[in-house]
Amino acid sequence: MEHQTKAQQSPPHVVIVGGGFAGLYAAKSLGKAPVKVTLIDKRNFHLFQPLLYQVATGSLSPADIASPLRAILGKNKNTQVLLDRVLDIDPEQQKLLLRDRKELGYDILIVATGVSHHYFGKDHWQTDAPGLKTVEDALEMRRRIFLAFEAAEKETDSAKREALMTFVIVGGGPTGVELAGAIAEIAHKSLKNDFRNIDPTTARILLLEGMEHILPPYPPELSAKAQASLEKLGVTVQTNTLVTDIANNIVTFRQGKHTDKIKAGTILWAAGVKASSLSKVIAERTEAQLDRSGRVIVEPDLSIKGYSNIFVIGDLANFPHQGEKPLPGIAPVAIQEGEYIAKLIKQRLQGKTVAPFRYSDSGNLAVIGQNRAVVNLGSLKLSGFLAWLIWVFAHIYYLIEFDNKLVVMVQWAWNYITMGRGARLITGQDSTNIPSEVETEQKEYQLIEN
Amino acid sequence: MEHQTKAQQSPPHVVIVGGGFAGLYAAKSLGKAPVKVTLIDKRNFHLFQPLLYQVATGSLSPADIASPLRAILGKNKNTQVLLDRVLDIDPEQQKLLLRDRKELGYDILIVATGVSHHYFGKDHWQTDAPGLKTVEDALEMRRRIFLAFEAAEKETDSAKREALMTFVIVGGGPTGVELAGAIAEIAHKSLKNDFRNIDPTTARILLLEGMEHILPPYPPELSAKAQASLEKLGVTVQTNTLVTDIANNIVTFRQGKHTDKIKAGTILWAAGVKASSLSKVIAERTEAQLDRSGRVIVEPDLSIKGYSNIFVIGDLANFPHQGEKPLPGIAPVAIQEGEYIAKLIKQRLQGKTVAPFRYSDSGNLAVIGQNRAVVNLGSLKLSGFLAWLIWVFAHIYYLIEFDNKLVVMVQWAWNYITMGRGARLITGQDSTNIPSEVETEQKEYQLIEN
Repeated sequence: MEHQTKAQQSPPHVVIVGGGFAGLYAAKSLGKAPVKVTLIDKRNFHLFQPLLYQVATGSLSPADIASPLRAILGKNKNTQVLLDRVLDIDPEQQKLLLRDRKELGYDILIVATGVSHHYFGKDHWQTDAPGLKTVEDALEMRRRIFLAFEAAEKETDSAKREALMTFVIVGGGPTGVELAGAIAEIAHKSLKNDFRNIDPTTARILLLEGMEHILPPYPPELSAKAQASLEKLGVTVQTNTLVTDIANNIVTFRQGKHTDKIKAGTILWAAGVKASSLSKVIAERTEAQLDRSGRVIVEPDLSIKGYSNIFVIGDLANFPHQGEKPLPGIAPVAIQEGEYIAKLIKQRLQGKTVAPFRYSDSGNLAVIGQNRAVVNLGSLKLSGFLAWLIWVFAHIYYLIEFDNKLVVMVQWAWNYITMGRGARLITGQDSTNIPSEVETEQKEYQLIEN
Repeated sequence: MEHQTKAQQSPPHVVIVGGGFAGLYAAKSLGKAPVKVTLIDKRNFHLFQPLLYQVATGSLSPADIASPLRAILGKNKNTQVLLDRVLDIDPEQQKLLLRDRKELGYDILIVATGVSHHYFGKDHWQTDAPGLKTVEDALEMRRRIFLAFEAAEKETDSAKREALMTFVIVGGGPTGVELAGAIAEIAHKSLKNDFRNIDPTTARILLLEGMEHILPPYPPELSAKAQASLEKLGVTVQTNTLVTDIANNIVTFRQGKHTDKIKAGTILWAAGVKASSLSKVIAERTEAQLDRSGRVIVEPDLSIKGYSNIFVIGDLANFPHQGEKPLPGIAPVAIQEGEYIAKLIKQRLQGKTVAPFRYSDSGNLAVIGQNRAVVNLGSLKLSGFLAWLIWVFAHIYYLIEFDNKLVVMVQWAWNYITMGRGARLITGQDSTNIPSEVETEQKEYQLIEN
């Protein structure tokens, strides 16, 4: 099998697929290496995913947490960014099939295309219960949350009004906890004085989690503190609860032997993820194995079996952590994997080898509200205001590496003082806010074709 | 004909349709008056329209220039905000037919629903040449502008690449001038170092104006200065030029007897406006006359003929200005009209009358680039950096009245220093940036029905 780097004059061509944390940090770290780098993404920006829930809940704008990839990598003269999609991989010929650009050869391939929502085989739940992965997802969630209050304000039937003011969040991981906390703050603080026919503080916010505790990877005492904080904010937390059906704005769930239903104007999905479709291509074209979620099981150096020049990193990779469970799909893991691959490539060019990848765990953070968070630093477990401060600084530290994120700090400070949510715009096309007759037509844009 | 305010115990009900500058300032000024105010809008936010072109060109985010109407008016306890659409008006019964709420009675009605694009009977041009009135319009323009550079970067055919890097702006009024200047700065400054296969500074930016000068209401010497500034930025300005067709990314235009065509990846419409559809309803139900653009010709006190309790203000009104041309559709006119009506209502409640409306012209401003503007204060005509400073302060002054616009100042300062455009995200649904398979499906959201 021919999969070594081809003999060549020109610098080796490293192709990175995906501009999330893993791919971007690999590209950044290769900026001065004697290689040619091509970063391919279907979007023109990197998204700071950990703060996406703040876009969904009207605290931040998409541009606050997104940076154009070209702006981040523009200074790296060895790097080009391509807006394109990878359709197929040919590991023998060492090339990719792209949608627009047709073919692209590589010497080293790094795949970091991440994950998307997973509805456990019930994809039809998606219409009723959207998930949170993209900017569009976030704006859709925002639209539903704030439109629910608007619809309730207009509704004269009290049962319908109650349903409209019911919010169900499925999944008690960090995203679910963050969403539930933020919606509680919207209802109890931001919108408190804004309506005349409804009282937003009577909104019902329900967080459903299948496991015994919310935030399953955290130690039980922190999970309990997080739950107490959420309840103080007005969230009803129900653990050991499995959702069995979602249809027509009704969530059906089972808690032990007890089955129940709830009608909710807004249902948000924060429960499952599955690997992006490129993992299947990798499995078909190489000997790589996939796990149950479709993630690619990688070798100790993050390469895939039989191909020392193909690497899978970030959420798409299943890296067995010191014989234990695979590493979680969080930004610090992705960043460290990206930086590791860059180092490995640089060392390999000098004929050196590097030790297997090892994740250095600097702790876990989850935010509950404008003032509360839980932080697990291993030996140190914190909750409350101090944990929240750590959360703020950790996020600003990483955000600040990007473009113009000073703005986020000012926005946060302002929101914090005013409890305001200036970004609670209901946008997009919907029956309740059609901008004008003309805009209901499907807009199609033909790029120039001959 | 019965159209006087009904005899009543409860405070008179003032219904305002439209939350733009005219309607919002009327509502704000009635905040402490002994009336009940209902503001109806189809959107949940007021849009600071003068800065919309900055959203379209990636400098600002929608939330930076939009404020939730409920947040602005929440403190006015006599005021309620309704997210709804007005379908019909019954001036005899003094009530409105709404889409969601069915009926709403009024004692005094203020209509301020503004204008939308007008393609002079060629509505099919809209697909190729979108206009700029809503947040969605701005994001669509942004998507097209930045996607054009991305497509050019991938294009191998030089003629197609050249077409992709051609931008035509139709209409040399303030919006057209602002768009052309901003696109020139995008090409020559913001994106200068971002591409590997194209040189963004070679982009062709064409501004077409039908009249003899751009910025027609300005004195010729300021128009000439604006044109010189645009040309210095890299914009080709063509006056006396009428667009005769737009189809398949080709603009056909006539300059005198000379006809020409140009193929352009991006065509933007900044030429014409027409009155919102409510003006037709008003004309049918009352004796009001419409002008050629469909605007309602109003009486000296901004009421409509025969109905002293129905007012039309803002861009929707045609107010003959001291026997001259009608007042232009700009924010200062709308604000003054809104405030005038509020005063009139308050005086009338005390049995007093007020003098006819009189517009106090405090000057015109148009911005050309990050450093240049033209200002016409009547006796004082300015251009260049000083004019730009006046423009900045005038806009911040009005923005600051709203919610959290400190953020805009920081964003502007940052953009100014870095020449960056952090908000140049390509979002929405399009073949080149489909977020995921799932998201290409039409998302439909059913509000709870029964």
